[in-house]
Amino acid sequence: MVEPSATVPPAGPPSEHPSLEDPGYRCAVLELLGLLAYGEVAAFNRLAKDAQHAPALADQLVLSRMAAGELSHVDGLEQYVASFGGDLTASMEPFRGVLGDFDDRTSPRDWWERLMKTYIGYGIVFDFQREVSGGLDPQTRAVVDGVLADNGHADYVVSVLIPAIAAEPQLGARLALWGRRVVGDALGVAQHALAEHPVLAQLVSRVRPEDDAAKLLNRLAGVHSARMERLGLNA
Amino acid sequence: MVEPSATVPPAGPPSEHPSLEDPGYRCAVLELLGLLAYGEVAAFNRLAKDAQHAPALADQLVLSRMAAGELSHVDGLEQYVASFGGDLTASMEPFRGVLGDFDDRTSPRDWWERLMKTYIGYGIVFDFQREVSGGLDPQTRAVVDGVLADNGHADYVVSVLIPAIAAEPQLGARLALWGRRVVGDALGVAQHALAEHPVLAQLVSRVRPEDDAAKLLNRLAGVHSARMERLGLNA
Repeated sequence: MVEPSATVPPAGPPSEHPSLEDPGYRCAVLELLGLLAYGEVAAFNRLAKDAQHAPALADQLVLSRMAAGELSHVDGLEQYVASFGGDLTASMEPFRGVLGDFDDRTSPRDWWERLMKTYIGYGIVFDFQREVSGGLDPQTRAVVDGVLADNGHADYVVSVLIPAIAAEPQLGARLALWGRRVVGDALGVAQHALAEHPVLAQLVSRVRPEDDAAKLLNRLAGVHSARMERLGLNA
Repeated sequence: MVEPSATVPPAGPPSEHPSLEDPGYRCAVLELLGLLAYGEVAAFNRLAKDAQHAPALADQLVLSRMAAGELSHVDGLEQYVASFGGDLTASMEPFRGVLGDFDDRTSPRDWWERLMKTYIGYGIVFDFQREVSGGLDPQTRAVVDGVLADNGHADYVVSVLIPAIAAEPQLGARLALWGRRVVGDALGVAQHALAEHPVLAQLVSRVRPEDDAAKLLNRLAGVHSARMERLGLNA
């Protein structure tokens, strides 16, 4: 936990924001951008795999293009990190595999469960990334906002699942149960990432000094409930 | 087989090239572009899967980016096909699954065999696509040349496999054997595609009226031998 900065001398407007000149902040940013880049590669993998299971060619193309779109964000992150002398690949390394477990643990039984798993799991991954991206300097913030921009996946999944659930009410019940399993795994990944990378918790506490991991996970669970509601399902 | 056109009246320069106004040629082009687009989606899948197995993050990024690059060609094909009133997704449909068998039939046992399989298999897929893209009008030709441009994958694989084989001579012997299995499957895919899509053979015979499937497959096998030689292996 970072101590409340009551004893720090008052500063003018430019130093309201943290600066990449500050080595501690710079390290935290490098770690955060490594997490984001790794998240994009993981999303690329996940969406590419989902695309291969799509029942229709049109869906396969939609998801493949979303996959490529996520990957393209890595280029911007790489350039930005290089602009202040960092190495993005090295920053990604510690996060390698952090999502592998999530992908492997629960295997979807059909196309609907597969769509749902990515909707919930990567929804939480992106929410988590938004949470730990609080309190950035404006320049880094702009880069991060581009990376975390909505890629349309949630709307796509909702547009596919709502009519499917309407046509087969049993499917809704099954997906609600499935959602509970998946969200448990996804929140576990977030918890694990926070525990293994204390710098991420420090970034959160820049914006919310009173925050702890439990509160952050609670907020993620809240957004998850809203995501389930969009499908007419209870979380 | 198309009859040699000895009785066709002589034509001036503009009609030297086939025209998209000709319904027969237009259908053939639509089928060819469907094949190409499907080939790009299949290459996207294959490279994305290979990327996930990469031992190092740097290789994972190289291959993931190549995957996205292949997929990006589908956008250009879609626009071109739409420009003369066609529907690319409909044209791709008949080719769906034509490569699935190739991907499933032989499972690589390690990273080297995986790289080799894509090098050989998609090498032949692209050679085959070049063969059936003979005799196009210049406008379609330009679009096709962009799609079939070298993506650097072969150079990448050669740069990885040559030092690996030098370090472990047994690997060379194993990969040479593996190459023979893979090339058999890949040529089988090409043969099957020609048999199922007679329009493709007709496109070939525009440029080489004396050609048949056996001659085409022989040429593909020849390019394959050169590909193996780059690795210092016998085909």
